[in-house]
Amino acid sequence: MKLSEIGERKIVEKIIQKFSIPMDDCAVIDNGNEYMILTTDMMNEKTHFPQGSKPYYIGWYSIAVNLSDIAAKGGKPLAILAAISMPRSREINFFEEILNGMEDCVKKYGGKIIGGDTKESPFLTIAITAIGMVRKNEYMARKGAKAGDAVYVTGSLGKEANLYLGNIDELLNVKPRIKEAHELAKARVATSCMDLSDGLASSLYQLAKINGIGFLIYEKWLPIDDKARKMDSPLEFALYHGGDFELLFTMPEEHEDMLHFNFKKIGYVTEEKILIEKDGKIEEIKNKGYEHFVS
Amino acid sequence: MKLSEIGERKIVEKIIQKFSIPMDDCAVIDNGNEYMILTTDMMNEKTHFPQGSKPYYIGWYSIAVNLSDIAAKGGKPLAILAAISMPRSREINFFEEILNGMEDCVKKYGGKIIGGDTKESPFLTIAITAIGMVRKNEYMARKGAKAGDAVYVTGSLGKEANLYLGNIDELLNVKPRIKEAHELAKARVATSCMDLSDGLASSLYQLAKINGIGFLIYEKWLPIDDKARKMDSPLEFALYHGGDFELLFTMPEEHEDMLHFNFKKIGYVTEEKILIEKDGKIEEIKNKGYEHFVS
Repeated sequence: MKLSEIGERKIVEKIIQKFSIPMDDCAVIDNGNEYMILTTDMMNEKTHFPQGSKPYYIGWYSIAVNLSDIAAKGGKPLAILAAISMPRSREINFFEEILNGMEDCVKKYGGKIIGGDTKESPFLTIAITAIGMVRKNEYMARKGAKAGDAVYVTGSLGKEANLYLGNIDELLNVKPRIKEAHELAKARVATSCMDLSDGLASSLYQLAKINGIGFLIYEKWLPIDDKARKMDSPLEFALYHGGDFELLFTMPEEHEDMLHFNFKKIGYVTEEKILIEKDGKIEEIKNKGYEHFVS
Repeated sequence: MKLSEIGERKIVEKIIQKFSIPMDDCAVIDNGNEYMILTTDMMNEKTHFPQGSKPYYIGWYSIAVNLSDIAAKGGKPLAILAAISMPRSREINFFEEILNGMEDCVKKYGGKIIGGDTKESPFLTIAITAIGMVRKNEYMARKGAKAGDAVYVTGSLGKEANLYLGNIDELLNVKPRIKEAHELAKARVATSCMDLSDGLASSLYQLAKINGIGFLIYEKWLPIDDKARKMDSPLEFALYHGGDFELLFTMPEEHEDMLHFNFKKIGYVTEEKILIEKDGKIEEIKNKGYEHFVS
């Protein structure tokens, strides 16, 4: 049987079963009063970086998407390892611009590039490992959401529309929600948190599975991005496209006043089913989103 | 200017200068009485895994070469992150065999696979990040070798001959010197240590540069591998080919009796120049070895 017949999420399930890994945005190492949290992401120019991607933004993006995972657990970035493969025929300037993008992202959001690897390869591939620290009592897991909690996102949804509008720089200029997540973690009010890398629908299904819950989302509450609104089906972009890298979190509604960053309630945690209310009608959200090997 | 015009080692120099990274086998994070040591290696089937490589040994190798870096600093493996990209047309069994190889290597040498990433890519690429711990007073740096120390290696040299003899399984069946390095680190006698991934000559040049020293190596003392001895020029394989993943270390000779693993004196640290004594004549060892982008 081929990988395309089972898809990325089933493959990941196989791995986490084999190695008894908890399903979350980061791996965790116990370290006294803190958790060290670690995440790794591999990207290549054949499947991740659209034609016309500038090396500066490739570098930025590669760090930012990893810091987004660190943010989702309430972590503070500590260190980065960057492994880069590319063809020998590539210009040194191309390589240096990637490093500049990485450096600027780290300067803005924290951490330090402490090591890496360079190798030859027929096309550009980048693998980043980001390490962060979080106090144990501030760690935000995927598990914990309960029926009755409200569900929230930061920023806006559907930014992958930038890909179709030709705004490649903007698409890659991901802003990891480190500051927002830090405030959320300190407040200790979130019952679950994850980042939105695979799209809202897919992320809701993942949270639902881990917590044995459902969701009711209100279409009119969704902070649909201005760029997605230019498309034929803005809602499609907000629900089913990847690339938003926002925080998705749940908490009891009464804590809203404690938080001072830009976030938006989009619905509620329910007992079962993942539904959306739209124009007075309720329908099921499909379990689809960006998935390697099958999408 | 293209990457091929400057080569991997100059590229790495650029990176470590840009980010002020010390040149060593692992990155280091301060953690109380210990250092957390981290290393990352990216490999792909176009440049790293010869035709006929079995997925089990690809998985094993990918972990083993990273643990070899952890070993070289005296570290105990703690955790592994494994990022794997491959085409969707690949058989699931191929993927599972890679995981089996990874699992067996970790079972034998320590650590635990705690997370990773899977992505789609036109060919197999693996990026491993290994994390280890070492007591600060047992950490073995590359820096510290002094003229008058003797220089040693573990195991045998020139095992890349296996590539030319068609012994691909054996080539990939790297045995990281975790146990030996642990004993060496505990004894606190090594003045410098690194792993031999790029070949003996290249590694000697790297140690010489960091420490402002030279070496005098005796050809008759080199533990040349039986497989290399089958080749036209066994010494060429022992000096200039990568893939040995042995420990290269220096220490004052009088400490030899303290160590009980398999190691071999190959020469002495000198003030300058990197020389080899062969058939009563002394000549310079060339500064060459496996190098991405130019070799």
